[in-house]
Amino acid sequence: MQVWKDYQAEHKDRFLDELLELLRIPSVSADSRFNGDVQKCAEAVKQRLQEAGADKVEVCPTAGHPIVYGEKIIDPALPTVLVYGHYDVQPADPLELWHSGPFEPVIKDGNIYARGSADDKGQFYMHVKAFETMNRTNTIPCNIKFMIEGEEEVGSANLGIFLKENKERLKADVVLISDTSMISLENPSIDTGLRGLAYMEVEVTGPNRDLHSGVYGGAVANPATILAKMIASLHDENNHITIPGFYDNVQELSAEERADLNAAPFDEAEYKNDLGVDELWGEKGYSTIERTGIRPTLEVNGIWGGYIGEGSKTVLPSKAFAKISMRLVPNQDWHEISDLFAKHFEAIAPKSVQVKVTKHHGGSPYVTPVDSIAFKAAHKAVHATFGKDPIPVRGGGSIPIVALFEKELGLKTVLMGFGLDSDNLHSPNEKYGVANYYKGIETIPYFHQFFAELSK
Amino acid sequence: MQVWKDYQAEHKDRFLDELLELLRIPSVSADSRFNGDVQKCAEAVKQRLQEAGADKVEVCPTAGHPIVYGEKIIDPALPTVLVYGHYDVQPADPLELWHSGPFEPVIKDGNIYARGSADDKGQFYMHVKAFETMNRTNTIPCNIKFMIEGEEEVGSANLGIFLKENKERLKADVVLISDTSMISLENPSIDTGLRGLAYMEVEVTGPNRDLHSGVYGGAVANPATILAKMIASLHDENNHITIPGFYDNVQELSAEERADLNAAPFDEAEYKNDLGVDELWGEKGYSTIERTGIRPTLEVNGIWGGYIGEGSKTVLPSKAFAKISMRLVPNQDWHEISDLFAKHFEAIAPKSVQVKVTKHHGGSPYVTPVDSIAFKAAHKAVHATFGKDPIPVRGGGSIPIVALFEKELGLKTVLMGFGLDSDNLHSPNEKYGVANYYKGIETIPYFHQFFAELSK
Repeated sequence: MQVWKDYQAEHKDRFLDELLELLRIPSVSADSRFNGDVQKCAEAVKQRLQEAGADKVEVCPTAGHPIVYGEKIIDPALPTVLVYGHYDVQPADPLELWHSGPFEPVIKDGNIYARGSADDKGQFYMHVKAFETMNRTNTIPCNIKFMIEGEEEVGSANLGIFLKENKERLKADVVLISDTSMISLENPSIDTGLRGLAYMEVEVTGPNRDLHSGVYGGAVANPATILAKMIASLHDENNHITIPGFYDNVQELSAEERADLNAAPFDEAEYKNDLGVDELWGEKGYSTIERTGIRPTLEVNGIWGGYIGEGSKTVLPSKAFAKISMRLVPNQDWHEISDLFAKHFEAIAPKSVQVKVTKHHGGSPYVTPVDSIAFKAAHKAVHATFGKDPIPVRGGGSIPIVALFEKELGLKTVLMGFGLDSDNLHSPNEKYGVANYYKGIETIPYFHQFFAELSK
Repeated sequence: MQVWKDYQAEHKDRFLDELLELLRIPSVSADSRFNGDVQKCAEAVKQRLQEAGADKVEVCPTAGHPIVYGEKIIDPALPTVLVYGHYDVQPADPLELWHSGPFEPVIKDGNIYARGSADDKGQFYMHVKAFETMNRTNTIPCNIKFMIEGEEEVGSANLGIFLKENKERLKADVVLISDTSMISLENPSIDTGLRGLAYMEVEVTGPNRDLHSGVYGGAVANPATILAKMIASLHDENNHITIPGFYDNVQELSAEERADLNAAPFDEAEYKNDLGVDELWGEKGYSTIERTGIRPTLEVNGIWGGYIGEGSKTVLPSKAFAKISMRLVPNQDWHEISDLFAKHFEAIAPKSVQVKVTKHHGGSPYVTPVDSIAFKAAHKAVHATFGKDPIPVRGGGSIPIVALFEKELGLKTVLMGFGLDSDNLHSPNEKYGVANYYKGIETIPYFHQFFAELSK
C-alpha cells in the first residue's frame, strides 16, 4: 500500500537508529553476568512497543528472564496474529574474532554488524516498526499481539509456564515469527519446517586428581583420551549416528519431497568457499540441503579438559567435559532422544572412568502446514514485495517454542524470516542486511492484510 | 657423622622456615604473568647459596629465565660434584581444587603442602642445607658446584646453550640431582632411569568461523569431532600407540630385567584406591610398573574447542586444540618421535579440516649405570641413613637435561630423589614430607663423602 511505503520512506532513518540502540544492550541470556542488561533490554522493548502504539504493554517476570507482552485489539471479531520474537542474544565470544565490538553496531557494505542483529533483535523489531506503520496510517487489518521473550538462546525454560498461565491473554489464530533466514533477496524463501534440539553436557572422570603424566602416564585411563574415543564412536564411517534407536522415529521423506527440497538453488562451490573448507562432511546418501534440513545431526559444541593455558603442563587430567547437541527432525521426541543419548553414553564408558550426563535443554521439531491460510498469506506477502513466489525450504535451526505453541495454545506457526544463512548467527561478526531489515518491515503489513482477507 | 647430626638438629627449624619462604614465591615458568616472581625466586636462591657459604654465586641471565650458579672449590685435585635442581614450578591450576593456597605453604600431618614443595624446591634446597652443614662443620669432602635453573617445567630451552658456553666453569665428575621419588621411607629406592619426553600441540581447523550448529550442523566437519576421532585413533584396542615407527627403537628388556623391576613392592589395590579408580588402564602385556617405567606412552595433557563457558551455545566451532605429550624410553630419540607424530597426525587428518602441529619441547630418555662410582656412593649413602639397601627402579617422569649433561658435559647423572609418587606433583595439593626433607639433608653429605672416598 502506498501509505505504508510513504510512511516507511519518511521514517526509515529512525527505524534503523532505534534498532542500533537496541543492539547496544548486551542482553546475553546464557551468562548471569549480563542479567542486568537483559532486564534493561526488556524495558527498552516495552517502551518501543508503547511508542509504536501497543496497549497493555508489560514486562512480565518469570523464574528466569522476563517476557515482554503488548497488544492491539481493534475488533474482537477479527482474526488475531500473535507475533513472537526474542530480545536475548548468544554470548559474543570468541571476542578476539570480531572486527568491531559485538555491542557497538557498525554499518558496513550494507550490513549491520552486531550480536543479535539478525538473531533476533533485527528481525523481531521489524514487526514493531511494521505495526507502527499500520497503526500510524490507521490501516491495521486484524488484532495483533506481541510476545517477546528473553530466554530463547538458553532453551525458553520459562515460556511454557507463561503460556499455560496466560492462555486467555494469548488467544490468537496463528503465531508469526521472523527468526529464520531466506535463501537470498533474489531467491526469497519461507521455512516450512525446523529441526528440534537436545542439548547435553557430559563429564568424564578418571583419577580423583590431576596427575603427573610421567609418573602415572600409561597406567591410568586419561579422561580426555576416553572422552575422545567415546565422541569418536558416536558417528560411524558413513557419519550415521550410532546411538541405538536414534533414527527409529525419523520421518523419511518421499523421493518427490526430496526432489522438491533439492530443487532449491544451492551452489556447493560457493558454499565451500564461504566456509573456507576444501571438502564438505556429512551423512552418506544425503545432499547438503537434506543434511541441514531433514536429517538429524549430532555436534560437539564445546570440549575441554586438562591444561589449556599458555605453554605446556605435563598433566594427566582428572576430568574432561563436552557440550554435545543433537538436531532432531519429525517425529523424534527430544526427551526420548536425550534419554537415549544418556543411556548410550553411560553404556559405552569403560570401567576405568566415571561418566555424568546432564540434559541442558531441548525442543521438538516442527513442520508448517503449507496449505494453511497463514502460510498462504505469508506466501502472498512475500510475492507482493519481492515480486516472485517464495521457495519453501526446511530450516536447520531450532525454535523449540514452535512446538510449544501448538501444544499449549493449539496454534500453528508461520516462519517468515528475512535473514541469510551467511549472517554469522551465533558466530563472531553477526550481521543483518539493512535491505533485509527494510524489506521485512515492508512485507509484514501485507501478511496481516492477506491473513485478514483470507480468514474471511 | 655426629657433627652433621648435631648441626642439623640444632638448625632444623630454620632449615624448614627457609624452605617455606622459598615456597611462597610463585615462580611459575610456563606463565609469563609470573616472570617477575621467577626472577625474584632466582635472587632468593642466590642469597641462600651465599649464606650457606658458596663462592662466585651468580644469577646468570638466559634468553628465558635465569640460572643460579654457585660453587665451593676446596682443592682442584679432589673430585667435583655438580648439583642440579630447578627453582621454577608448574602452574597451580585448577586452583579451586587446592585445600590451601598453592603459594601459602601449610604443614599438615607431617607434610608441607605447596606448589613446588617436592618438585623441586624442597628437593634442591636439601642440597643447599646439606652443603651448609658440611661447610659450617668444616667437613666438605670434595668440590661442589650448584646449577639451579628456572625453566625445567617448560623444557629447559636455554640450559643447553648455558652448558655449551660454560663448559669450563661446569667441569665436574658427576651430576647429582634430587628431583625424583623413592618408593617410601620404609622402602628407599634410587632411580636407575628416566623416560624421555616429546610434547606437542595440535590445532584442527574446520570452517573459517564459528557456525550455527543448526544451520550448518551435519554438513560441515566439526573440528572437535574430528580431533576426537584423530586422538581416539592414536591408541589401538590393546592401548598400543598406532604411530608408524613409534616402537622401532624401543629397548626391550630381558625377562630377567623385567622380573627384577616387578620385584619392587607394589600394591595394586592401594594404588587404585589412592587414585580413586575402579580399573587401571594401559598397554596390554605389561604390568603397571612396566607401563610407567620401561614403556613409552602418549597422553592428552589438555584439549579445548568451541563454547566452554556457562550454559549452552549451539555453535559448530571453527577450531579445536590439544596438547599431547609422549613419554619415551631408551633408545627413542625425541626429535625423531616428534617428527613421526607430526607426520602421522597430518596424515590421518581428513580433507575436510586443516591441521597444524607444533613441537613444544622434549628430551631423551636416560639410564643410569649402576656400576659407576657415583651410583655406588648414592647406594651407600642411602644405606647409611636408612639402614637398608635402596631398591633400583625406573622412574616414569622425565628430566630431559640428564641426557643433555651427558651430551654437552660428558657427565653421568645420579638421581637421588626423596619424594613420593603420591606427592601430587603437577597436581593440586602438591606436598613433600617434612621427614623426607630432613632425611635428604641427612643423606646428601654421605653421598659426597663416599663419592670422594670411592674416587680415590
